[in-house]
Amino acid sequence: SKFEYVRDFEADDTCLPNCWVVTRLDGRNFHRFAEQHGFIKPNDDRALHLMTKCAQTVMQELEDIVMAYGQSDEYSFVFKKKSNWFKRRASKFMTHVVSQFASSYVFYWKDYFKDQPLLYPPGFDGRVVLYPSNQNLKDYLSWRQADCHINNLYNTVFWMLVQRSGLTPVQAQDRLQGTLAGDKNEILFSEFNINYNNEPLIYRKGTVLIWQKVKEVATKRIKLPKETEEKEVEVTRTRSKAVPLHCDIIGDQFWEDYPEILADS
Amino acid sequence: SKFEYVRDFEADDTCLPNCWVVTRLDGRNFHRFAEQHGFIKPNDDRALHLMTKCAQTVMQELEDIVMAYGQSDEYSFVFKKKSNWFKRRASKFMTHVVSQFASSYVFYWKDYFKDQPLLYPPGFDGRVVLYPSNQNLKDYLSWRQADCHINNLYNTVFWMLVQRSGLTPVQAQDRLQGTLAGDKNEILFSEFNINYNNEPLIYRKGTVLIWQKVKEVATKRIKLPKETEEKEVEVTRTRSKAVPLHCDIIGDQFWEDYPEILADS
Amino acid sequence: SKFEYVRDFEADDTCLPNCWVVTRLDGRNFHRFAEQHGFIKPNDDRALHLMTKCAQTVMQELEDIVMAYGQSDEYSFVFKKKSNWFKRRASKFMTHVVSQFASSYVFYWKDYFKDQPLLYPPGFDGRVVLYPSNQNLKDYLSWRQADCHINNLYNTVFWMLVQRSGLTPVQAQDRLQGTLAGDKNEILFSEFNINYNNEPLIYRKGTVLIWQKVKEVATKRIKLPKETEEKEVEVTRTRSKAVPLHCDIIGDQFWEDYPEILADS
Amino acid sequence: SKFEYVRDFEADDTCLPNCWVVTRLDGRNFHRFAEQHGFIKPNDDRALHLMTKCAQTVMQELEDIVMAYGQSDEYSFVFKKKSNWFKRRASKFMTHVVSQFASSYVFYWKDYFKDQPLLYPPGFDGRVVLYPSNQNLKDYLSWRQADCHINNLYNTVFWMLVQRSGLTPVQAQDRLQGTLAGDKNEILFSEFNINYNNEPLIYRKGTVLIWQKVKEVATKRIKLPKETEEKEVEVTRTRSKAVPLHCDIIGDQFWEDYPEILADS
Ligand SMILES: Nc1nc2c(ncn2[C@H]2C[C@H](O)[C@@H](COP(=O)(O)OP(=O)(O)OP(=O)(O)O)O2)c(=O)[nH]1
Ligand SMILES: Nc1nc2c(ncn2[C@H]2C[C@H](O)[C@@H](COP(=O)(O)OP(=O)(O)OP(=O)(O)O)O2)c(=O)[nH]1
Ligand SMILES: Nc1nc2c(ncn2[C@H]2C[C@H](O)[C@@H](COP(=O)(O)OP(=O)(O)OP(=O)(O)O)O2)c(=O)[nH]1
Ligand SMILES: Nc1nc2c(ncn2[C@H]2C[C@H](O)[C@@H](COP(=O)(O)OP(=O)(O)OP(=O)(O)O)O2)c(=O)[nH]1
Ligand SMILES: O=P(O)(O)OP(=O)(O)OP(=O)(O)O
Ligand SMILES: O=P(O)(O)OP(=O)(O)OP(=O)(O)O
Ligand SMILES: O=P(O)(O)OP(=O)(O)OP(=O)(O)O
Ligand SMILES: O=P(O)(O)OP(=O)(O)OP(=O)(O)O
Ligand SMILES: [Mg+2]
Ligand SMILES: [Mg+2]
Ligand SMILES: [Mg+2]
Ligand SMILES: [Mg+2]
Ligand SMILES: [Mg+2]
Ligand SMILES: [Mg+2]
Ligand SMILES: [Mg+2]
Ligand SMILES: [Mg+2]
Ligand SMILES: [Mg+2]
Ligand SMILES: [Mg+2]
Ligand SMILES: [Mg+2]
Ligand SMILES: [Mg+2]
Repeated sequence: SKFEYVRDFEADDTCLPNCWVVTRLDGRNFHRFAEQHGFIKPNDDRALHLMTKCAQTVMQELEDIVMAYGQSDEYSFVFKKKSNWFKRRASKFMTHVVSQFASSYVFYWKDYFKDQPLLYPPGFDGRVVLYPSNQNLKDYLSWRQADCHINNLYNTVFWMLVQRSGLTPVQAQDRLQGTLAGDKNEILFSEFNINYNNEPLIYRKGTVLIWQKVKEVATKRIKLPKETEEKEVEVTRTRSKAVPLHCDIIGDQFWEDYPEILADS
Repeated sequence: SKFEYVRDFEADDTCLPNCWVVTRLDGRNFHRFAEQHGFIKPNDDRALHLMTKCAQTVMQELEDIVMAYGQSDEYSFVFKKKSNWFKRRASKFMTHVVSQFASSYVFYWKDYFKDQPLLYPPGFDGRVVLYPSNQNLKDYLSWRQADCHINNLYNTVFWMLVQRSGLTPVQAQDRLQGTLAGDKNEILFSEFNINYNNEPLIYRKGTVLIWQKVKEVATKRIKLPKETEEKEVEVTRTRSKAVPLHCDIIGDQFWEDYPEILADS
Repeated sequence: SKFEYVRDFEADDTCLPNCWVVTRLDGRNFHRFAEQHGFIKPNDDRALHLMTKCAQTVMQELEDIVMAYGQSDEYSFVFKKKSNWFKRRASKFMTHVVSQFASSYVFYWKDYFKDQPLLYPPGFDGRVVLYPSNQNLKDYLSWRQADCHINNLYNTVFWMLVQRSGLTPVQAQDRLQGTLAGDKNEILFSEFNINYNNEPLIYRKGTVLIWQKVKEVATKRIKLPKETEEKEVEVTRTRSKAVPLHCDIIGDQFWEDYPEILADS
Repeated sequence: SKFEYVRDFEADDTCLPNCWVVTRLDGRNFHRFAEQHGFIKPNDDRALHLMTKCAQTVMQELEDIVMAYGQSDEYSFVFKKKSNWFKRRASKFMTHVVSQFASSYVFYWKDYFKDQPLLYPPGFDGRVVLYPSNQNLKDYLSWRQADCHINNLYNTVFWMLVQRSGLTPVQAQDRLQGTLAGDKNEILFSEFNINYNNEPLIYRKGTVLIWQKVKEVATKRIKLPKETEEKEVEVTRTRSKAVPLHCDIIGDQFWEDYPEILADS
């Protein structure tokens, strides 16, 4: 039709080839969302596990994602360098990731939040960032995990001061103003007898999702040629699954343990 | 931290000022989704109304959307020219739109699909397109509505041939190969006694969402100063609501009727 | 060859359709260039006229430029909204403009600077900016002309104070610190008996280049059929030429006088 | 002023960090330019050396260029990965390169073309391309050198057929239609007694510019403290210069010989 010309206004947003394509999403106004849905402070296991379930769905439904990393209300997905999914269009990467994540969040909500009803549909922002080298990619992931650590240490002490010592949020904030990591560890230990290093790894390290081959045993009813009746047999299949880890990804160990993540293919 | 440098790899994606910012989303693989969820062919009212409910949610939750237009598995949202929402970052526009839409789709599913359970969380793609002039914007919307008309006329005849005349899909396709709009109208009329112009407007024109002031009457319990008991009173408020229309937006009439849509502000 | 894949790394930089495409160039380090080539302060007619000659060359050699505006060491070129030159690739616009300008600068140097030799080849930066509406374009040009005015008024007083009153540059700067336009006009008038409004328009307004039809009279030698000898005849041709004006382009008058500049075609 | 808002329409065009920034320029319509200036066919040494002189000027005047490669009417400049020149703005890279090159072309013309006057100022296009890995960069340069080889082999035979065998251009073209490299070598050898491998390297390989330390001996007149007269002394300085090579850059040898080109710094 004579209106077709408007198509030409679409700008090309192809991602530079041979770069890692990272898509990060982040919950919109989750401060309020957490408040209204009674998230436990500072870490709500239900919320964290739901986030990871959604990320697994994204990895299974979309193409070419080699790993993911999540913490708090955010998740990052790493598409392989050679990905040619949707011709590397940035808009396709970011919108498919956030929309799949957002619909999954509502879809799986009740499996994690049981009797806490979902009051309204949440939003997420998303973005695409390119990283040319493996070191850049590792530094990106380290940046997110360092952010997880810094926030979690702060939040852990903050909520101890509020929940256990009865400080007001403003008082707790003042108390922590200017303190270093060591100071916060010290407060936790001396005032609350908490060794921060014993806090759950999922809080301190966030969640890494990597592809692992898993054996699945399924029972199938089959009818063998010469027999008249069906029989139940156990069938073992190997399937790739996005498996959560809560380990350090800043050091070299992780990358040595899972060299296939960075390997070209 | 020493990893912060990775932030600098984020590219600026600010939209050119003084242009209409259009975000269009489209259901991912809805051919299959419609099949698996028993969508009525060619038009499923439940699906169409759910789409519109989600679009209304998007308009209410996000800023600066002046109108929206939807048909089939797609919806377009028009942000006002002067919008400075998130500093006009394209990624923020498109990801907030699709994520809010996707989470709403699951959230409101059961209100429209009743006993048809949602089998899996759907995905949507999204994109941002800029239109410098009002004419360009109107032509964009005309393009989508013309697309609605063409597809719907085709689908209406196609499914008549299949459902009523018992043709196979391949036979129906062959029959329609090369036919013009007039031919299709003729088939509908002579073979199925259907006047296409009497088909529901929502199928033929799609759905336009515009902001309308609506009066809301609410009952409130209040206690007047000198009285001892609470009393129920009716309170009338004027509120802006995203209201669906199923009218032509290709001609001038619509734009004359609603001049405020294109008016600067 | 197996290396051809590297072509795919070229990013698409198509300009949004239906926008004015403005390319501005600016002399690289012309502070030093002017110094070394003995430019008269604050305005050197030779330099200004050479700049305009180069801009005319750009307009003649390139396609779709509807006007240009220059002052100091910069020139802006306006490509028409509907231009499809090199498929609207931004890199083509800006590199063709600056390279043609730069080569012309050296080529025509001696026609303007006579006995002042060119000591080294100058550089220019360039950029492309899109303007969706006519008002935006007019405001862009107004911005450049206002900049011309502000700088020229400042420079005129500054160099009077230095050249006539013997102030050092630092003293002149101090003297002008915080003064408004009115104050500067006053200094010029009371101390130097200069009415700024009588200063040459080319300094105060810069240079506008627009296409004008000009009659060219050429003498041609032709041999008429039935005659034996060649005869000289005068031939009059109408040709489009980029003609310089030094008028105000901030007010409406200019745009009313030359409506064809903004007219679509 | 109230017009300043138009600045916000400038789009950010920062190059992705940690990538090689390649700027390639190419003569505009040099088919005609060569014709009109009597370039020798197929290779004009004056033209090639002038191109290289201009490229050297670009390397000396601009920042962060680690090497350049040229052939025919084109030159590519490689900016180092970590370059932060003009904050990595693509428009600054490409316009400074082409404008410096273009002004140098006119400036140095007479040093190479002696009595052949320059008839008009030439234009050049330019573009920026990013390469994330060293291999990509090497493949880019190999692509240009392979292009040089293919064109030069073709042109060498073509012009032999035209100039020596008296074929028309159309006949020569027909003769070469569908021939492989081996066939062309064979024609050269059997018909013109030319061993292509003995053709000048500059034609077959193009020109590589790399930074080399060179010793410069200058005579300076100095007056020693206790002496009364000035004396001439030879002063040796080490300076970095962009030195031309005509070697293969497709194989590994070049990169092994000059490891500093790809080395970070
Ligand atoms: N109580 C609680 N809150 C959480 C948990 N995980 C995330 N949140 C909340 C706390 C933070 O305020 C918020 C994440 O911070 P953001 O910087 O993303 O801010 P927010 O989402 O409010 O705003 P945004 O729209 O992202 O700019 O989510 C949790 O496990 N428990
Ligand atoms: N039965 C039925 N199907 C519908 C209805 N609305 C949309 N659909 C289906 C039919 C089309 O195959 C599909 C929309 O076409 P698209 O071009 O968007 O293709 P699809 O979503 O399959 O692929 P995509 O991921 O968008 O490339 O959605 C409806 O009301 N009833
Ligand atoms: N004496 C003199 N100088 C002029 C004339 N026209 C321009 N210039 C010089 C004075 C300014 O320092 C310079 C233009 O200012 P810019 O802001 O463009 O600075 P410049 O080119 O030095 O640096 P840039 O590379 O553009 O950042 O050119 C003139 O007619 N006479
Ligand atoms: N005779 C002669 N011609 C040359 C020499 N070097 C380059 N040329 C000419 C021959 C080619 O037609 C032209 C380079 O080819 P291009 O593909 O760049 O085409 P051209 O510059 O004509 O058009 P363009 O504006 O780049 O699209 O330059 C030379 O050494 N001798
Ligand atoms: O949202 P923040 O403050 O954590 O930081 P950011 O996500 O980098 O900022 P933005 O969402 O504005 O890109
Ligand atoms: O998806 P289509 O075929 O309706 O057309 P499009 O949406 O313009 O194509 P794409 O999704 O590839 O941008
Ligand atoms: O160069 P300036 O300071 O006149 O201002 P600008 O040209 O807008 O700045 P830049 O050259 O850095 O884009
Ligand atoms: O100009 P060509 O044909 O050698 O090829 P190109 O330079 O890649 O094409 P363009 O100048 O159109 O980018
Ligand atoms: Mg954020
Ligand atoms: Mg958030
Ligand atoms: Mg967050
Ligand atoms: Mg599509
Ligand atoms: Mg679809
Ligand atoms: Mg669709
Ligand atoms: Mg500047
Ligand atoms: Mg300058
Ligand atoms: Mg300047
Ligand atoms: Mg080209
Ligand atoms: Mg060329
Ligand atoms: Mg060429």
